[in-house]
Amino acid sequence: MVVDLPRRLTAEALGTGILVATVIGSGIMADRLTDDVALALLGNTLPTGAILVVLITILGPLSGAHFNPAVTLVFSLRREIATGMALAYCAAQVAGGIAGALLANAMFELPIWQASITVRSGGAQWLAEGVAAFGLVFTILAGLRFRSEAIPWLVGLYITAAYWFTASTSFANPAVAIARAFSDTFAGIRPIDVPGFVLAELLGAVLALALASWMLAEPKPVRQTRPAE
Amino acid sequence: MVVDLPRRLTAEALGTGILVATVIGSGIMADRLTDDVALALLGNTLPTGAILVVLITILGPLSGAHFNPAVTLVFSLRREIATGMALAYCAAQVAGGIAGALLANAMFELPIWQASITVRSGGAQWLAEGVAAFGLVFTILAGLRFRSEAIPWLVGLYITAAYWFTASTSFANPAVAIARAFSDTFAGIRPIDVPGFVLAELLGAVLALALASWMLAEPKPVRQTRPAE
Amino acid sequence: MVVDLPRRLTAEALGTGILVATVIGSGIMADRLTDDVALALLGNTLPTGAILVVLITILGPLSGAHFNPAVTLVFSLRREIATGMALAYCAAQVAGGIAGALLANAMFELPIWQASITVRSGGAQWLAEGVAAFGLVFTILAGLRFRSEAIPWLVGLYITAAYWFTASTSFANPAVAIARAFSDTFAGIRPIDVPGFVLAELLGAVLALALASWMLAEPKPVRQTRPAE
Amino acid sequence: MVVDLPRRLTAEALGTGILVATVIGSGIMADRLTDDVALALLGNTLPTGAILVVLITILGPLSGAHFNPAVTLVFSLRREIATGMALAYCAAQVAGGIAGALLANAMFELPIWQASITVRSGGAQWLAEGVAAFGLVFTILAGLRFRSEAIPWLVGLYITAAYWFTASTSFANPAVAIARAFSDTFAGIRPIDVPGFVLAELLGAVLALALASWMLAEPKPVRQTRPAE
Repeated sequence: MVVDLPRRLTAEALGTGILVATVIGSGIMADRLTDDVALALLGNTLPTGAILVVLITILGPLSGAHFNPAVTLVFSLRREIATGMALAYCAAQVAGGIAGALLANAMFELPIWQASITVRSGGAQWLAEGVAAFGLVFTILAGLRFRSEAIPWLVGLYITAAYWFTASTSFANPAVAIARAFSDTFAGIRPIDVPGFVLAELLGAVLALALASWMLAEPKPVRQTRPAE
Repeated sequence: MVVDLPRRLTAEALGTGILVATVIGSGIMADRLTDDVALALLGNTLPTGAILVVLITILGPLSGAHFNPAVTLVFSLRREIATGMALAYCAAQVAGGIAGALLANAMFELPIWQASITVRSGGAQWLAEGVAAFGLVFTILAGLRFRSEAIPWLVGLYITAAYWFTASTSFANPAVAIARAFSDTFAGIRPIDVPGFVLAELLGAVLALALASWMLAEPKPVRQTRPAE
Repeated sequence: MVVDLPRRLTAEALGTGILVATVIGSGIMADRLTDDVALALLGNTLPTGAILVVLITILGPLSGAHFNPAVTLVFSLRREIATGMALAYCAAQVAGGIAGALLANAMFELPIWQASITVRSGGAQWLAEGVAAFGLVFTILAGLRFRSEAIPWLVGLYITAAYWFTASTSFANPAVAIARAFSDTFAGIRPIDVPGFVLAELLGAVLALALASWMLAEPKPVRQTRPAE
Repeated sequence: MVVDLPRRLTAEALGTGILVATVIGSGIMADRLTDDVALALLGNTLPTGAILVVLITILGPLSGAHFNPAVTLVFSLRREIATGMALAYCAAQVAGGIAGALLANAMFELPIWQASITVRSGGAQWLAEGVAAFGLVFTILAGLRFRSEAIPWLVGLYITAAYWFTASTSFANPAVAIARAFSDTFAGIRPIDVPGFVLAELLGAVLALALASWMLAEPKPVRQTRPAE
């Protein structure tokens, strides 16, 4: 299906926006309702995983459903998206993500413009973010290679797991990391800590691309001297 | 499959009834078993998401599985259901929904007829309800366009997310909103607050229809002067 | 696939046994680990729903994966299973179920033979059990009619919901009800209360069959005087 | 698809590594965030089930996605993998699993090399581990026989259930059992207790193979004296 530019960018902005609204909104809801942080993370995880399945299924046919500059970067390095288009995608993702953060703030009657003060920094956090993005990108590339119709589920389930097994709760997405800085709530991150997260995510994504290029390479055609059975 | 009117309306009433019995019943169960409100919402969310997948799968072939006047309105505006039929659908949904509320009250040994006193009102709540219905209707329309067999899952997962990311816990359904007023329990809503919710839901639904009409439009056939590759 | 009698009965016994071991075992595990009853029910619900998807998928091709005398009764009334075979199925289900209860007791270092003292009785409980079995059987029959490959998921999700929305936590299965009497733990039921549950379940199942016979009837062939388009 | 040895072994090591990192990492995260052990187990269960679906889907086409010496043993006994290859698989699984444990320790700022002191021993635990591995292997073999494309889901759901219904929380995997000894955290096991678990797992796996060989045998072709209907 050929989709024109305005609709592609709208899909990226809308998808990233609803994703961020879900991440931040469910974090606020969960945090308000319980004092148990594991339960709050559970109330943050299930909605995030669920909405990813939905958004990738319904917007994938329009824009590819990247919603994530690290993913767009990888497709750009694979020369599957032109550089200009990739930059437009990233801009739409960041703008949509920030709008989603403001929407979550508004729905929960918080000041619309705010900045998080949650510290998320240090080597272990960056390692965790690198692992998170590595796993996400490898999942997407291997999914595309072997079972593309399952990608919405693969991504939703991967993030469900990564919220818990990475020490950083797996942002794994530069646009979402930037947007989360705009809400001083459960899912927030101090603006000054965003660049470290973004760098770790991009590094993890590129490493996953490198590994996938080898692991998932198409088998070379074999010259045959007699017909195959 | 051609289905006659009585069976279509029975399907709408039965589906909305079981949906409401699940929403209210699981709310009562969860609320009785724990003091942690986040846990109660989780015990409310999972059954609701699960039963939606079931009901839409098994009743969809009979009536389309609207279970929701906002959805019926959208299909009416798209001229995919005649006005008279749409009104009959809405009546069946509301009647079935109320019956489901009474059934939940009965199963949990509560007075069968009662009215909720839970206040759910104000701009933030209405914004949240508008967002909830917007997302639901856009999900359905995009799902129909790209992957209709996945709609039961898409709706179940969307509502699973929306229970947490919208500040109103996503009623997103005028028939369910009316029915919830008949149970003064976890999922209840004060009767006087129902119209505000219904209005917000209808508005969100119509906005989603407008956006979808543009985003999901079929590409126009292109006159070709030479064969496509 | 034609399957001989010993393997069919083994499949029914094995499936019901693992189902009961999961219901009772997860109940014991959850109950030991937390004081919050809602959390215990959640730790009981997720494993039960999950194992149902698995068992119905892997044993369905061998025996039909009834695991439930109420389901076998319905297929018998539909004349899709001979009476003698149906009785053999029920015996295998009950025997397998009891073995599953004993296995759960053994794994958790409890006395292997024991009887529950949990009271589960009264009109509201019976109503809830009737509703639970009604919904289960209607789900199965409509699933078979419209989307048979989805039945494992439909049943797993239905029970996930019904554990919470029915006041009885949805036994919905006479063989499981009997087996649960053999473990005085979270999922138990006093032996004297079993007949009331069984009766309510059978009644709910037969009502679902009656409704389904009308709702899901194949459309009558129409005599055509000119070829259909 | 023909995959060369280095990529097969990398797939086994990578898959087992991410699996173990998820099991241990989510255990640490959950344990740190709550005092409720049932909630911690839930925060351990959902990520494990989710990542299994992902890993088996994306790595299955490369190596078969065993990630488990008990599974490799069963395929070796079925003569579906050569003995040398099976040993290489097991080595890759154990090495990958240990690397995953160290990675989890590092992400959560714990000493990288450590040994668990959690006692997991005794007849009931071994019975539970045997049951866990029996169920896992039977699920895989029956899934392969009847619905191979569903195996990622079947395994993920089976383990989700088995974490709760077996008293041992279902390690069900010798490579994972060995790796868990390298982290003195929620999911750990005392090194001295590993051999008992491994033995019970292998026994359960072989029993499942025996049962499956009978239950799932292909029907013998019947000599026909007249044409079948």
